[in-house]
Amino acid sequence: MTTPRFDVLGIGNAIVDVIARAEDDFLVRHAMHKGTMSLIDEPRAEAIYDAMGPATEISGGSAANTIVGVASLGARAAFIGKVKDDTLGQAFAHDIRAAGVSFQTPPASDGPSTARCYVLVTPDGERTMNTYLGAAQDLHPNDIDDDLIAAASVTYLEGYLWDPPHAKEAFQKAARIAHAADRSVALTLSDAFCVDRYRDEFLGLIRTGTVDLIFANEKELHSLYQTADFDTAIRALKEDAKLAVVTRSEKGCLVVTREESIAVAAAPVERVTDATGAGDLFAAGFLVGLSRGADFRTSARLGALAAAEVIQHLGARPATSLKDLALQNGLEV
Amino acid sequence: MTTPRFDVLGIGNAIVDVIARAEDDFLVRHAMHKGTMSLIDEPRAEAIYDAMGPATEISGGSAANTIVGVASLGARAAFIGKVKDDTLGQAFAHDIRAAGVSFQTPPASDGPSTARCYVLVTPDGERTMNTYLGAAQDLHPNDIDDDLIAAASVTYLEGYLWDPPHAKEAFQKAARIAHAADRSVALTLSDAFCVDRYRDEFLGLIRTGTVDLIFANEKELHSLYQTADFDTAIRALKEDAKLAVVTRSEKGCLVVTREESIAVAAAPVERVTDATGAGDLFAAGFLVGLSRGADFRTSARLGALAAAEVIQHLGARPATSLKDLALQNGLEV
Repeated sequence: MTTPRFDVLGIGNAIVDVIARAEDDFLVRHAMHKGTMSLIDEPRAEAIYDAMGPATEISGGSAANTIVGVASLGARAAFIGKVKDDTLGQAFAHDIRAAGVSFQTPPASDGPSTARCYVLVTPDGERTMNTYLGAAQDLHPNDIDDDLIAAASVTYLEGYLWDPPHAKEAFQKAARIAHAADRSVALTLSDAFCVDRYRDEFLGLIRTGTVDLIFANEKELHSLYQTADFDTAIRALKEDAKLAVVTRSEKGCLVVTREESIAVAAAPVERVTDATGAGDLFAAGFLVGLSRGADFRTSARLGALAAAEVIQHLGARPATSLKDLALQNGLEV
Repeated sequence: MTTPRFDVLGIGNAIVDVIARAEDDFLVRHAMHKGTMSLIDEPRAEAIYDAMGPATEISGGSAANTIVGVASLGARAAFIGKVKDDTLGQAFAHDIRAAGVSFQTPPASDGPSTARCYVLVTPDGERTMNTYLGAAQDLHPNDIDDDLIAAASVTYLEGYLWDPPHAKEAFQKAARIAHAADRSVALTLSDAFCVDRYRDEFLGLIRTGTVDLIFANEKELHSLYQTADFDTAIRALKEDAKLAVVTRSEKGCLVVTREESIAVAAAPVERVTDATGAGDLFAAGFLVGLSRGADFRTSARLGALAAAEVIQHLGARPATSLKDLALQNGLEV
């Protein structure tokens, strides 16, 4: 096993967020489930865009946000995802590279345009997402670079990859290469509705050890085990997963292994401006902690700190150096 | 004189801001004058974009920001400016219409792409701007709709319009139509370097009464009269202008007429996040005050309040309803 060139490699949908503030009744009028992600087609994308308020465009994508967080924490980061060679695709590529991430997936030269996520942020800071997958649907096993996977300590995958038709195969290929090279594979369950769409397959990934580390929030965990009882779900998770982290918003998180459960508090937050990216940035901190040999508690504290930063401003990527922030909070990275 | 359909009509460069945080040494390395706007060509635009950090795209343009502020204050607003029919042009049109502004200028179907302003925000909140004019260069007197101008109480123009080749003629045509219809014409001097480029023409506009109301900040005023002494500059302004407002950042503003000077304090600000749009939003508040028959002091307080809102977040357009904010602060709009 050679020394890894990257601490974390992410594979995910390459998406530009189109973010606007909205009142709760906007969600009701447009039949949106608050706090969740829905897949939309192009006509619905146009209808939502026409109806929504003035917007801000910021590069997003769940795993991509995590990987930018990894780089912001000073770790070595790479990303695989598909954009089109259009204005938004160029912005996505610029932004992720400018954040210090290695991003070499060739853009699509034809086909649908770069993926967009219409994010409606309600006054409580909650975000409701509508994703037009566009070019992200063209992520293909060919886009998985064997050497790159083998060169990364951890390969991190998003559950949303189950949505585009070929991305699932790309995911499975990446997991095989990673394990053959003695690397780890991590998965975030992404969204309760996503878990609902692919429950059995996700459980399979966990039970067969295709993934070594699972990230889930409470809703996703409840959806995975189809129970409303937190303790029941945690007991099931302990049976199935080698290592999992369940994030619980302001209640902090629970690191779960077969032997123990470690509760870690959330980092203090003055005001939630936009919850987008909380889970993504938690994963960034936790993964960087692990890759640097920190214990679970310290890794979870790094995750909590990164999540607290991102929810205090608009957009799902850090607005400041997370490495500096960690050092100011006495966390070595 | 018929009843106006619009309180304020703005004419300006239709620009999308590409905003990134930068350290001061970035400005030095790229030979940028901090706090000012420079015009750049396409190769320089590409070089700056390649070098700058992860960015956020938000619709901008000085007069366009003002007009969105006017709409946010609950007044009737319209805008004339040129985009191309590309992704950024569509975003500009969506954003300004979604803000409640009437925007009917047809987009260019060929030629250069929609104008972009690369905005570097330094840790002190100051913004340094690099504008690629692109499609905004194609604003032409034909784009000036006579009926629209005649239907607006005030036509508001930005000094930056002197940069694109035909926009100056569009400006002059609009001023003629407005005065023929017994409406007012307002001008912002835009930027000290812009004043430096067109000093004599701007003085001509003021002295001939082509513009009835001037907005300037201290730097622009000093550049206009080529003096470092504030009182000397104000005396000269009093001679030349019927009505002027000089904005002075945290020192508030001075409303200047031939008869009097009225000083109004700045509105309290917790922390300056991004100074972009301060002058634009001040103008919005002042113009709405005037159009609603408020006195100069109240109009200036409205301007100060709108400016204070916009500098406390990223981007040059209001993030909240300025009308609600005004009401909360005891200002009737």
